[in-house]
Amino acid sequence: VKPSEDNSSLLWAFLSSYLPNDEKSIQKLFVQRVEYDLALTHEQLKANKKEQFVAYALCVRDRLIERWKDTELFFDKHDVKRVFYLSLEFLLGRSLTNAVDALNLSDNFERSFRNLGIDMENVSDQETDAGLGNGGLGRLAACYLDSLASCNYPAWGYGLRYQYGMFHQMIKNGYQVEVPDFWLRWGNPWEIERFDVQFPVQFYGRVTERPNPDLTASPDDATLYSWEGIETVMAVAYDVPVPGHDTFNTINLRLWSSKPSKEFDFNLFSSGDYFAAIENKQKSETLTSVLYPNDNNSAGKELRLKQQYFFVCATLKDIIKNFRKKEINILRLHEKVSIQLNDTHPSMGIAELMRVLVDEEQVPWKAAWEVTTKVYAYTNHTVLPEALEKWSVGMVGYLLPRHLQIIYKINHHFLLEVEEFWQGRNVDIHYIKRKLSLIEEDHDKKIRMAHLAIVGSHHVNGVAHIHSELLKTNLFPDFYQIFPSRFTNVTNGVTPRRWIKQANKELGLLLNETLGEDWIKDTTLLAGLRSHAKDREFQKKWRTVKHKNKKRLAAYVRKELGISIPVAALFDVHIKRLHEYKRQFLNILSVIWRWKQISGMTLDERADVLPRVVIFAGKAAPGYYVAKLIIKLISIVAEKINNDPDMEGLLSVIFFPNYNVSLAELLIPASNLSQHISTAGMEASGTSNMKFAMNGCLILGTMDGANIEIREEIGHKNMFIFGLLAHEVDEKRRAMYRGEIAMPNSLKQVLDLIEEGTFGEFPECKQLLDTIRHNNDYYLLSVDWESYLEAQNQVDKAYKDSHKWTRMSILSTAGTSKFSSDRSVQEYAERIWNVQPYPRPGPVVIDTRQ
Amino acid sequence: VKPSEDNSSLLWAFLSSYLPNDEKSIQKLFVQRVEYDLALTHEQLKANKKEQFVAYALCVRDRLIERWKDTELFFDKHDVKRVFYLSLEFLLGRSLTNAVDALNLSDNFERSFRNLGIDMENVSDQETDAGLGNGGLGRLAACYLDSLASCNYPAWGYGLRYQYGMFHQMIKNGYQVEVPDFWLRWGNPWEIERFDVQFPVQFYGRVTERPNPDLTASPDDATLYSWEGIETVMAVAYDVPVPGHDTFNTINLRLWSSKPSKEFDFNLFSSGDYFAAIENKQKSETLTSVLYPNDNNSAGKELRLKQQYFFVCATLKDIIKNFRKKEINILRLHEKVSIQLNDTHPSMGIAELMRVLVDEEQVPWKAAWEVTTKVYAYTNHTVLPEALEKWSVGMVGYLLPRHLQIIYKINHHFLLEVEEFWQGRNVDIHYIKRKLSLIEEDHDKKIRMAHLAIVGSHHVNGVAHIHSELLKTNLFPDFYQIFPSRFTNVTNGVTPRRWIKQANKELGLLLNETLGEDWIKDTTLLAGLRSHAKDREFQKKWRTVKHKNKKRLAAYVRKELGISIPVAALFDVHIKRLHEYKRQFLNILSVIWRWKQISGMTLDERADVLPRVVIFAGKAAPGYYVAKLIIKLISIVAEKINNDPDMEGLLSVIFFPNYNVSLAELLIPASNLSQHISTAGMEASGTSNMKFAMNGCLILGTMDGANIEIREEIGHKNMFIFGLLAHEVDEKRRAMYRGEIAMPNSLKQVLDLIEEGTFGEFPECKQLLDTIRHNNDYYLLSVDWESYLEAQNQVDKAYKDSHKWTRMSILSTAGTSKFSSDRSVQEYAERIWNVQPYPRPGPVVIDTRQ
Repeated sequence: VKPSEDNSSLLWAFLSSYLPNDEKSIQKLFVQRVEYDLALTHEQLKANKKEQFVAYALCVRDRLIERWKDTELFFDKHDVKRVFYLSLEFLLGRSLTNAVDALNLSDNFERSFRNLGIDMENVSDQETDAGLGNGGLGRLAACYLDSLASCNYPAWGYGLRYQYGMFHQMIKNGYQVEVPDFWLRWGNPWEIERFDVQFPVQFYGRVTERPNPDLTASPDDATLYSWEGIETVMAVAYDVPVPGHDTFNTINLRLWSSKPSKEFDFNLFSSGDYFAAIENKQKSETLTSVLYPNDNNSAGKELRLKQQYFFVCATLKDIIKNFRKKEINILRLHEKVSIQLNDTHPSMGIAELMRVLVDEEQVPWKAAWEVTTKVYAYTNHTVLPEALEKWSVGMVGYLLPRHLQIIYKINHHFLLEVEEFWQGRNVDIHYIKRKLSLIEEDHDKKIRMAHLAIVGSHHVNGVAHIHSELLKTNLFPDFYQIFPSRFTNVTNGVTPRRWIKQANKELGLLLNETLGEDWIKDTTLLAGLRSHAKDREFQKKWRTVKHKNKKRLAAYVRKELGISIPVAALFDVHIKRLHEYKRQFLNILSVIWRWKQISGMTLDERADVLPRVVIFAGKAAPGYYVAKLIIKLISIVAEKINNDPDMEGLLSVIFFPNYNVSLAELLIPASNLSQHISTAGMEASGTSNMKFAMNGCLILGTMDGANIEIREEIGHKNMFIFGLLAHEVDEKRRAMYRGEIAMPNSLKQVLDLIEEGTFGEFPECKQLLDTIRHNNDYYLLSVDWESYLEAQNQVDKAYKDSHKWTRMSILSTAGTSKFSSDRSVQEYAERIWNVQPYPRPGPVVIDTRQ
Repeated sequence: VKPSEDNSSLLWAFLSSYLPNDEKSIQKLFVQRVEYDLALTHEQLKANKKEQFVAYALCVRDRLIERWKDTELFFDKHDVKRVFYLSLEFLLGRSLTNAVDALNLSDNFERSFRNLGIDMENVSDQETDAGLGNGGLGRLAACYLDSLASCNYPAWGYGLRYQYGMFHQMIKNGYQVEVPDFWLRWGNPWEIERFDVQFPVQFYGRVTERPNPDLTASPDDATLYSWEGIETVMAVAYDVPVPGHDTFNTINLRLWSSKPSKEFDFNLFSSGDYFAAIENKQKSETLTSVLYPNDNNSAGKELRLKQQYFFVCATLKDIIKNFRKKEINILRLHEKVSIQLNDTHPSMGIAELMRVLVDEEQVPWKAAWEVTTKVYAYTNHTVLPEALEKWSVGMVGYLLPRHLQIIYKINHHFLLEVEEFWQGRNVDIHYIKRKLSLIEEDHDKKIRMAHLAIVGSHHVNGVAHIHSELLKTNLFPDFYQIFPSRFTNVTNGVTPRRWIKQANKELGLLLNETLGEDWIKDTTLLAGLRSHAKDREFQKKWRTVKHKNKKRLAAYVRKELGISIPVAALFDVHIKRLHEYKRQFLNILSVIWRWKQISGMTLDERADVLPRVVIFAGKAAPGYYVAKLIIKLISIVAEKINNDPDMEGLLSVIFFPNYNVSLAELLIPASNLSQHISTAGMEASGTSNMKFAMNGCLILGTMDGANIEIREEIGHKNMFIFGLLAHEVDEKRRAMYRGEIAMPNSLKQVLDLIEEGTFGEFPECKQLLDTIRHNNDYYLLSVDWESYLEAQNQVDKAYKDSHKWTRMSILSTAGTSKFSSDRSVQEYAERIWNVQPYPRPGPVVIDTRQ
């Protein structure tokens, strides 16, 4: 009998139905997952919380898949312009709570599972953080996905599926030890392995040329090139559904994983050494296995470049393949596709798209370049020189020979444009060209990826107002002159779903009660809190929320670290990557000063001291020596202070190891004060400052990054701002180098205490202290020291006035309207991508239970 | 609200229900799999046959899991003695057809899917062979699992989950090229990853000693040892359900995969080199990734020893953990556990069990040894010296320091026993001890794993009558003297489910029609064919079956290799690993002789020639130079003959690349004649001879391995037996070496033809031909040459008499009653393991569809 096509419409009907969400149905499907996917008995399930989590997550995923698939079909049907957010990092953290919340099924699920003897909170604690990012940049990408989905944009994220995410940080004898984080040990129930989406990616090899048979071709197109690599690695897609909140839309995050190629690389087998051939295959499999653990720093390693190319090559193949389903003419790509480059990490995609268009699609160079620059937009995330990616020309030429040619040609055309722009003006055109060139012509020639990204994009944005201004004035002023309209700003944002509603349930409920429930999709409503700021009753509720969160944190600290902290104390939190420019060093030095002050007090005087718990958390890049010494210093100071009976109840210092998203979700709602004290002009934006403020935590900070805009919203009076301004920094630094700035005496005393061994053995301390001594204090700690101490005094004073503090706290939250990532992605969509929201209508529920 | 334990009985009720198997339910669950596991749309599914297969397989797996889980609970409830079949190889091939057949759901599934537009046969062709074995040994293990399940034994298989199974063989320019077989590219729907079953396995390190505080301990136990490894690798379990036929039982095959340890190996991190630490972790992950592609040959590589220890360590941890669920006293282990060692590959398990008992459980040495020898039994698979595993003492001492100590101690006690046995008799006891010692005291000291396996087991068996006799008389005669009752025979068998019913559907139907359906579980009924052997009507039906299978093969050969073969010709098949002792060389030489004969004939004479298609298939170990030259020779001869117009319709030669289980399932039912022509005394058993005979294929063979028992069953007249007998071989070989045996002239002529380049370029041919020239013909091709040619003449003659041949063919099948693996496992169960069958009662079907 021939298969009948007619009957297969049955399949279609089943596929378009949705799972029922009543208690019994949820339970039944849960049990099906336990039996048919995990193949566990009841006893085995009871004994294993990890498996309970997995079964739970699979049930949630089922519902996400329904929405996800129908969202995709909906976008497809409307043939919408799409935006693709390319990022080497997505710091997702945990997903269960967010997914259940997005589905609006929290109550149903909790009830259903409680009656099966399974406790939601216990289960969600079993989830391993997906730590596929270093810090702010990766977490931003995760927040943006949440907002893109929630605001109904036809967007996808693209990234890499590292097997080892951000390392697990342990502290041994005060030093950071990096332990590989094999986060997939228990599998990842959120991902769907897409065996049907696999692309080959090639490396190395050579470029062959042939004359263009079309004799009318322009000089740019007179020669045709084709590149044949000699190593092929397969990119296999793993899809992670990203649910929107208050919408039926669910979008996709596609992560690529490297797999051995199915191609028979005969050059590998010619040796006849079977095991060597297998080893080669295995090596290709590990291409994407490790996330480079460098934040704001580029290591210049070949493997990293391979990861980047692997990423953009597979992503473009996928984007073009999907584009081709509807549209044949590749010259219209930009009408349907917008690609955002999150930092320069994916910027080789510019050369890759040119290669595909020119070499594979035989598009003339000029037309190809027009399409390319209309497709790409680039977000810059840093002004630090060490973070600007540059790839050795030799390495690129070896690994990606054709791309090097293309970059040279892009540069050639660009420099002609530069010449034309400056023509007839009295300037050193040679000097300008050297500065602007995509190729840095120093001893070792390098490709400046930021220049490639700027030249190849239609928009370049910074991530906070001050940062975007600095791009125009300090980092890329010559580009700004040539392409003034290309430069713009989109201030970062964070998702209020995760950072208020889920991390701080109590606050979420209080906001609902006070403002109604719409604040979560329209954060401008948070401004409504202002009218309650002085209301004593409301203040009391506000403090109760904070108190509960602090209690929760204190219990966790006791359980995990064995340290008791007084809940009534001011919780002063400094959590972010360890970096000299972020100045954790300044903070711990001030803690020593505080300790010295209290030590010298009479008992009566001590009675007036505001109790403080100073909490640090953050990871140092494994190769960042000074940052690791700062961790050591914090650790030994903490050890000393926490064991000093004079400090009992007055001062505690905690270094919380292994900072990650889940820890942030616990710490932020529980903090009273948070520190964002980078040297002015160095922090692009910061996003944790936004999260803290949203949670009613006051900010102690410098005029840097998003602090400036937060201050505009919240008001100077409600923050503790200190230190140099960005435009003062260069001059001060020069004065410092000239020996014109003396280190304050109090700071000297602190350094002496460390050097004398007051806090125990610290053989490398001289190397750390020398980073700010001998007129060598690049990050200007000594310049900001006194104003920092004064700001800290203001904090003490303010906290003692509970009503005042509570008012400031309420006004902090009230002033964060602007910092929702919903606002950010809307700005991107309107000003950069030119894409529209497409909310999917709700599903037609067909009951197929019969 | 506290989770309520009462309500969780609900979970239990759901778990014990079974999925409905009516058409609509099957379709609905299929669609659920498509949507919620593969997350595909209807269009995507239609476009992708691989994914159709996966969804199909998952639906089948659902039903296996139900049986599998309930079988385990049933065994558990009855606290049965269990048997564990430990094998480094399981050559499963494809599973879909077998599983559907075992579930007795072929009709339901076919109908259900046909109506969804999906064709069963197409889909099952999408399955990748699971090639986790080299040849006979691995396929035997797979057949035994089928029989253990079907005969209701409480058995589990244990093995390794290689990422790269047996290599994919390609033929380039006549030479074998080995391509890694990344068989998991599309995932493996049959396995369930058991994240909850993970064990650490350690390597290297050192042993510490301390005196036993118990002063009454025997001298053997005066010192306590403990081993601390310095590398830890996790073993994660993957479970594969193995369904029984005509029973509700479904048993488990547990395969271990290596994963990075969760332990923080701080010695790895002391260097502070994060990437080096990750590389180390990755290395541990690849421990189980490659199957060693050596058949009947031990390579002595450290990685292989690591695989073996990894395997037995994890397996014993698992077995003991499960044993402990019911029974605390480890001294009763043998009452509940029997372990079969499939060859010496898992024999390090003997030392490992001693280590666990003595070091970890603090059992006295003597008691531990008693338990150990009661637990283990050992199957020997070979008499070839190069296949007997020996591990360098230095390597074992480095990798497994404690195991080396234990092996020395086992040896010490054993040699005392030897001395005692021979006490007072007039023998060279020193010589006997040297011969029996577990340690080979040659230049490089080695551990003789077969000796360890014999000493540590309660039974040692060969795999065919002649092989078991040779073990007693030639290979281990001194052991046999000391432990006479330990030696026994269990002739191999094969499962008639796969090898008749599934591979040869037409034959299965004819057998049902003729004998009723019970032959599949009771192969003694096959003898009933004898009464039909001369029945012309039945003969016709018999030939029709064969004809259909030959047509199917011819179509496949045309499609895959572009060669047309005449279906009326005699299909003469020689498929097995390439090995000098298996003498594919002899076969191809005789083909050349035949070609020469036909070439010299007149047209009239040619009219009398029986048309033949000679088919070879088989893989050579990558390092086996001579075997690879034989492939080259076959290839060039085939090329010549197939393009020789004189041979048109008379002689074709095929080398079918990449022999595997699925190809065997196609070739065997389509063959008329099959060759099993090893030098007598060298093939332990062979199992393909049984499969061929079952499918009515006549055997051309030597008196070796199971051929001898097949001859007893089928009768000498119905086979083509030739060549030396085993007991004649040694004497003939000595005569050969003494130059007393002249190479037959015809054979010389054949060699000359090759050397003259008649078949084209073959620069290495001298090296191949020299293996049988210059009185150096170890495998005695020249001795058997003439009787082989004569036997071939007999074949020609017999085939021309269609009735005679058909009678012989029917009698072949009729004579295979004994060779069902059901009979083999019953013998093991009764004579070696002492375990009983436990058929599970059928399920209580609860309808939970509501």
